Amino acid sequence: MILTVTLNTALDITYRVPALRPHTSHRVTEVTERPGGKGLNVARVLAALGHEVTVTGFTGGATGLVVQEQLTGTRGVVDALVPVTGPTRRTIAVVDAHTGDTTQLNEPGPTITPAEWSAFQEAYEDLLTSASAVALCGSLPPGVPVGAYAGLVRAAKAAEVPVLLDTAGEALRRGVAARPDIIKPNADELAELTGSHEPLRATQDARRRGARAVVASLGRSGLLALAPEGRWRAVPPASLHGNPTGAGDAAVAGLLSGLVEKLPWPDRLARAAALSAASVLAPVAGEFDRGTYEELLGRVAVSGEVSAA
Amino acid sequence: MILTVTLNTALDITYRVPALRPHTSHRVTEVTERPGGKGLNVARVLAALGHEVTVTGFTGGATGLVVQEQLTGTRGVVDALVPVTGPTRRTIAVVDAHTGDTTQLNEPGPTITPAEWSAFQEAYEDLLTSASAVALCGSLPPGVPVGAYAGLVRAAKAAEVPVLLDTAGEALRRGVAARPDIIKPNADELAELTGSHEPLRATQDARRRGARAVVASLGRSGLLALAPEGRWRAVPPASLHGNPTGAGDAAVAGLLSGLVEKLPWPDRLARAAALSAASVLAPVAGEFDRGTYEELLGRVAVSGEVSAA
Repeated sequence: MILTVTLNTALDITYRVPALRPHTSHRVTEVTERPGGKGLNVARVLAALGHEVTVTGFTGGATGLVVQEQLTGTRGVVDALVPVTGPTRRTIAVVDAHTGDTTQLNEPGPTITPAEWSAFQEAYEDLLTSASAVALCGSLPPGVPVGAYAGLVRAAKAAEVPVLLDTAGEALRRGVAARPDIIKPNADELAELTGSHEPLRATQDARRRGARAVVASLGRSGLLALAPEGRWRAVPPASLHGNPTGAGDAAVAGLLSGLVEKLPWPDRLARAAALSAASVLAPVAGEFDRGTYEELLGRVAVSGEVSAA
Repeated sequence: MILTVTLNTALDITYRVPALRPHTSHRVTEVTERPGGKGLNVARVLAALGHEVTVTGFTGGATGLVVQEQLTGTRGVVDALVPVTGPTRRTIAVVDAHTGDTTQLNEPGPTITPAEWSAFQEAYEDLLTSASAVALCGSLPPGVPVGAYAGLVRAAKAAEVPVLLDTAGEALRRGVAARPDIIKPNADELAELTGSHEPLRATQDARRRGARAVVASLGRSGLLALAPEGRWRAVPPASLHGNPTGAGDAAVAGLLSGLVEKLPWPDRLARAAALSAASVLAPVAGEFDRGTYEELLGRVAVSGEVSAA
């Protein structure tokens, strides 16, 4: 199975309101709830592709129960979340039906105790023994040490499980130094990590910092990949309008899926770019439009060069 | 015991954000959760005054469980909520820490099925047999007939239990026609009911529509009461700055408390006005500052006249 780790799981709530006007009262016309947090989105895309996926991270409180109930209803996803005392956070996306704009409110997440963090690390090492790949995704909840991902990367490497890291800021900086197999920063995360706004230079720098391969997701410019095997760019044929939330998570799912199927890099990148583009047409993160995905897959332009052996 | 009915119970969530900017992403710095809905607020104030209170209405889903857990921890309040399939709604108050302004997002509430509505009516009639007074509070969730309060008022009168109605719009218009003992509209609700923005005239009109007594809550102008026994105004000595949410619910609790203790109208009104003013100093609805309440109680100016027998 493929393992995804979401330390800061969430219940993603979307509210539709006729028009958002600060400092007034609004009747919400439509409420939707989905399991959230990057690793859970990645898992749902992987499951839809036919992979067996196990999700871990933390779950707590009434919101955690709702997340777990919905995961139980997702074919192909096994719930191995570790219970904690604090409640799983909510994120609220308020969609203004008039303009289509979204206002986001993100709770900080429960404070994880040292005992809970230890329990997670033990569960994670057990899960690694049956994993073909692992993705470490998203932000850290309060209480988890900022060097957490570095430790989790090292444990995966010790277990000889390929590890992909998708996070930001200091957690990414520390995690990269532990030498993950792949990191998938977006343009902002890459610039914050390296200090450079020039994608190629920044991607090279990120590899020097420890990542074996770097796949930068550059929005409409597609994916830029630098790996020991070569460098490539994968660009979807058209930029699609829709909901960009979760496009990066769909790309991560594509990369992992291609990795465990031992596809060559150009095919992995085509899959990741097509999934990412197709996810933009889905109303919520963690889903994608299958027709669009299949149609785009053959039309992603992958260019690049293989490294001299 | 005093019975309070909240057909559209809620989990009231308050988010503190540094500054609310539409169409951007916000990190919530503080999250608080409280049982909500007018009748639950009334119950918490009554319990704090030393009364035994039973709350009924509907509860469902994970949010309903959180509401019930918090009620169980409230001394003096007995939970007689009726379970339903749909989840109890959330209300979200986003407090801008910079300006202090609040932006409110209210979910519509679960759709109540005809069978659930029948089950509630049965439970309500059972509870009336041991009630000394009943308050019917707040909006109706989807699925409950708009004439619901009229039926509940008639059932209370048939059981010879004094009944106070605190709602708005069409639910109030229909409920008043069933001749409740007291209604407690605010200025807007009273104007909507009667078409008049002149409080005395509107209060007289509301009595003609069926209410035995009308206590209008007029914000800083205090309370205006018209009853068969006479007419009074109760004005607190100073207008307090703070959170006005729940001030009306505190007034309802004061009126019911005075009713079951058989206090004369001027004493009931002094209690209601003092509680209402003191609740403004509490950070959340359903609570009040006891020191302020006790201090204000003797300083509320009640003026009026008793009707000729």
